[in-house]
Amino acid sequence: MASDDEGLIAELHALVGARGLITAPDDVAPYLSDWRGLYQGRSPCVLRPADTAELAGAMRILARRQVPVVPQGGNTSMVGGAMPDESGRQVVLSLARMNRIRDIDAVDMTMVAEAGVVLKAAQEAAAEAGCLFPLSLGAEGSATIGGVLATNAGGNTTVRYGNARELMLGLEVVLPDGTVWNGLRRLRKDNTGYALRQLFVGAEGTLGIITGAVLRLFPRPRAREVAFCALPDLDAALALFRRFRDRDEASLQAFEYMSGAGIDLVLAHIPGATLPVASRAGHYVLVDLASPRPDAALRELLEAVLGEAFEAGEVADAAIAESEAQVQAIWRLREEHPEAQKRAGASVKNDVSVPVSRVPDLIRGASAAVTELIPGVRPVPFGHMGDGNIHMNFVRPDGMADADFLARSHDLMDRVNTVVRALDGSFSAEHGIGRLKPSMLADWRAGAEFDLMRRIKAAVDPLGLMNPGKVFEA
Amino acid sequence: MASDDEGLIAELHALVGARGLITAPDDVAPYLSDWRGLYQGRSPCVLRPADTAELAGAMRILARRQVPVVPQGGNTSMVGGAMPDESGRQVVLSLARMNRIRDIDAVDMTMVAEAGVVLKAAQEAAAEAGCLFPLSLGAEGSATIGGVLATNAGGNTTVRYGNARELMLGLEVVLPDGTVWNGLRRLRKDNTGYALRQLFVGAEGTLGIITGAVLRLFPRPRAREVAFCALPDLDAALALFRRFRDRDEASLQAFEYMSGAGIDLVLAHIPGATLPVASRAGHYVLVDLASPRPDAALRELLEAVLGEAFEAGEVADAAIAESEAQVQAIWRLREEHPEAQKRAGASVKNDVSVPVSRVPDLIRGASAAVTELIPGVRPVPFGHMGDGNIHMNFVRPDGMADADFLARSHDLMDRVNTVVRALDGSFSAEHGIGRLKPSMLADWRAGAEFDLMRRIKAAVDPLGLMNPGKVFEA
Repeated sequence: MASDDEGLIAELHALVGARGLITAPDDVAPYLSDWRGLYQGRSPCVLRPADTAELAGAMRILARRQVPVVPQGGNTSMVGGAMPDESGRQVVLSLARMNRIRDIDAVDMTMVAEAGVVLKAAQEAAAEAGCLFPLSLGAEGSATIGGVLATNAGGNTTVRYGNARELMLGLEVVLPDGTVWNGLRRLRKDNTGYALRQLFVGAEGTLGIITGAVLRLFPRPRAREVAFCALPDLDAALALFRRFRDRDEASLQAFEYMSGAGIDLVLAHIPGATLPVASRAGHYVLVDLASPRPDAALRELLEAVLGEAFEAGEVADAAIAESEAQVQAIWRLREEHPEAQKRAGASVKNDVSVPVSRVPDLIRGASAAVTELIPGVRPVPFGHMGDGNIHMNFVRPDGMADADFLARSHDLMDRVNTVVRALDGSFSAEHGIGRLKPSMLADWRAGAEFDLMRRIKAAVDPLGLMNPGKVFEA
Repeated sequence: MASDDEGLIAELHALVGARGLITAPDDVAPYLSDWRGLYQGRSPCVLRPADTAELAGAMRILARRQVPVVPQGGNTSMVGGAMPDESGRQVVLSLARMNRIRDIDAVDMTMVAEAGVVLKAAQEAAAEAGCLFPLSLGAEGSATIGGVLATNAGGNTTVRYGNARELMLGLEVVLPDGTVWNGLRRLRKDNTGYALRQLFVGAEGTLGIITGAVLRLFPRPRAREVAFCALPDLDAALALFRRFRDRDEASLQAFEYMSGAGIDLVLAHIPGATLPVASRAGHYVLVDLASPRPDAALRELLEAVLGEAFEAGEVADAAIAESEAQVQAIWRLREEHPEAQKRAGASVKNDVSVPVSRVPDLIRGASAAVTELIPGVRPVPFGHMGDGNIHMNFVRPDGMADADFLARSHDLMDRVNTVVRALDGSFSAEHGIGRLKPSMLADWRAGAEFDLMRRIKAAVDPLGLMNPGKVFEA
C-alpha cells in the first residue's frame, strides 16, 4: 500500500469508522469484479457510508486529495459501469448501506428511497402500500435505485411507464466537491430553471452521486392477462403489437419478442421449461395486460385482438395463462434467455434500439450481416419489442471454440451497429456506456452533441474525479 | 438607428432576404409587446428565418457580432419569456415561419414538428393521422411547439400524459454559436451519454434555440365521459381525485378544480355560461375520462365512483355531459376563468404547485394569508388539481382601484409563496421563470442548485447571448 493510500485511509476511517470502510483485500475483492466476471479493477479500499452526510464528508476528503471515485450500487452493470480501472488510484464507493425507504405516500403516490435500496425491495414496499412501482428488469433482485437512475434503466415495462427517468420526480445528489444538492421535490409540475435532475439520470455517476430519489408510484393492478403467442414472421409481431397498443396502450404492460432459436435454447437448457403452445414456430411474443380496474375486461380485449390477428394470419397459435403459475411459466421463458444462452456457449450481446417500426428490419438485417461474417452463428434476438429495444445477441456456432468466437466480438458488434445506424437506431438502448462503449459514444455522437457533453462534464466535474473512464474515454 | 445596427441588418438581410427580416417599426411593434401587454421591449429588427439552415446562419452572424438573441414562438408567455429588454441591443428571432410538420408516423406514434408549428395545428395533424397529441392548454391556438418545449408547458392533461418534456423524444437545436445539433431521434430507449434534450426543455431559450422536435403520439380516444361536480369542501375534492386515480389512473385525462367564487365570476361575466348542477356550491371539479377502447365502460366507472363519493358525502351534486355540446359547455366554465377574472377587475396570478396531498392546505392557507394582507380580496383559485398545480389567483376587492391593488402584487405574491414554501411546493409550476421570476429562482434555488445552473449556462452559452435576462437576472 502506498503511503498516500495510508494517509487517505486513515482520514476516511476517522470519518466513517470501521463499518464504513473496507480495507482487507479479501473483503475488497467482491467489489472489484462485475457480476459476469467480464470487468475487473483495483481499489485501495471500499467506502460504504451510512448516510448522505457521511458520503458528502468522504467526497470532500477525496476531492481535496484529488482521488477519483467509482460509485457502485448492485454491481449489475452490463458495461462495466461500476468497476474501477487497474491503476489502484480509484476508490470504490458502495451505496449498499444507504438502503432506507425514507417515506412512502399513497396519496401523493410517491416513494422517497435512498440510492442503495434494491429495486425489488422498492417494488415490494410499493405493493405493501397498495401501489405499484413499475420498473422491472432481470437484475431487480440486486440492482439498486441509485444504479437504475444513474443508468436510466429500462426493462420490461418501458412501453407503458417509460424508463427510470420518467419514474423519478426528484433527486438528492452529492456533487464532486462534496456539496449536497437536495432536490427531493415531489412535484408533478416544477418549472424552475434547468432540469438538473434530468442531467444526473443517465450520467452514470460521472457528474455526481445520486444518494436518494423521489419515485413515482401507480395504482396497484387488479386485473391481469398474459398470453404467449406463436407467430409466422417478424412483420406479424409488429402488426400484433400495433393491434394491442392502438386498442388500449394503457393496459399493455409489456410486449416481449422471442425468436424460435431462443425458445429452443431455453427448452433445451432450462429444466422444467415447456412450450405453452402446441407446436414450435419461428417467432413468439409475450403479451402482458394489466389494469387497476377489476372490471377492465382484459380477457375480452385479449381474445378480441388475438381473434382478429388470427383471422389476419398474424398469429399461428396462442396460450393464455389461466393461473399465476402459468403467468410465471410464460415469463420464465423470456427471463431465462440469458441463462440458456450462457449454457449454449459463448455469446456476444448487443443492447440496441430502433424506432418500433424498424424492429423487423433490425432483426433480419443484423442476423444476415453477422451470419455473413461468421457462418453458422446462432442469432438469439429477444426483448422489448414494444419500445424498439432488442437484445440482438449471437451464440457461437456449434463446434467453434468460445475464445475464437469472442475474439471476433468487435467485428460482430460493428456489423450489428452498421445495421442499427442505417435504421436510425442507438448503439446503447438501456445498458448505457460504462467502460464498454466510450469510443462508440465519441464516434456516434461526434460533433455538437459530444462537444456539449464534454463541456457539461468539465463544468460540473472540473477535476474529472467522478467515475473516470466511463461515458468518456480515460 | 445606430450604425452598428445598420451593418448587422445589412448582413442579416443578405442571408435571409426581405421575407426573413422585418425592419419597419410598425411591423416590428407586434413582436415587442406580450399578448397581455404586461411586458415590452425594443429590437432593431425581427428575424424570421425560413428554415434551420437560415436560422443557424443568422446565429453565426449574431454570435460573431456578439448580439443577444430573444427567441419568440407564439408570444404567449405568462412571464415575459419572449420579450427583449429596453436596451434595443437584443434581436427578436421569431420561429413563426418554421411551421412545417416534417413527418407523422402512426406506426412509431411520432410526429416531427418544426418549432413554429402552433400547438393546435399539431393536435389536428395528429388527429388526422388517427392519433392523439395530448398536450392541451389555454393558449393552444397561438402557442408553438418550440415555445411549449422551451418552457416545458403543462396544461390540463399532465395528470395523465406528463408535461411537454414527457411528450418529447428528440430535438433539433441551434446552439449559441450557430452550430446545429440534430438530435431528432425517435427512440423510446437511448442511453448514450448525457440527456441533452432534457436540458434544453425548460431552459427557456437561454442555452440554444429549439428548431424542431420529435413528439410522442398516443392512440385516439374512442370513449369519453365528462362530469361537473359540486363539492362541500376542499378535502372532498382531494378524496374524489384519489377515487378516480386509484380506480383507473389511465382513463383520468384531467381533474380540474374551480372555486365557488370563480364559477360565480364566470356565470356573472361570460355570456351563455350556465351552471350544470342544480345549486351553487363552494367548490367544483371537472372530471374528464377517456380511453381508446370503445368498450372501456367509462360511464359505469364514472357513475360507480360518483355514487361512492356521494355516499361518503364528498359530492353534493354532479352533472354528466350527455353530448359533445355539454362537454364543451362544462370545459368552458373552466377555460373562461381568466376572462371572467379580467372583467371582474385587476388580478394577481400565481402559478404555483404543491404535492397533490397539500392542495387543500395551499388553497386555504394562501386565501387566508392574502385576505389578512388585503381584506376583501377575492381569491379565485382554479386549475390542475390532479397534478398539484393551482392557479392561486386573486381579484382586487370590490371598490379598490386596479392600480392600488396591483401596487401590492409583490407583497401578495410573497404571502402566497410563503405558504407554498411551507408546503414543499414550487413558485413556478408550468409558466417558467421568464423576466418575472429570476430573483425568485436565485432565492429559492440558492446554493448548489443555482450554482450548477450558472455553471451550465456558462458552459453552453459562454458569451451570454441567449435570451438574456430570462431565468437569470440580467
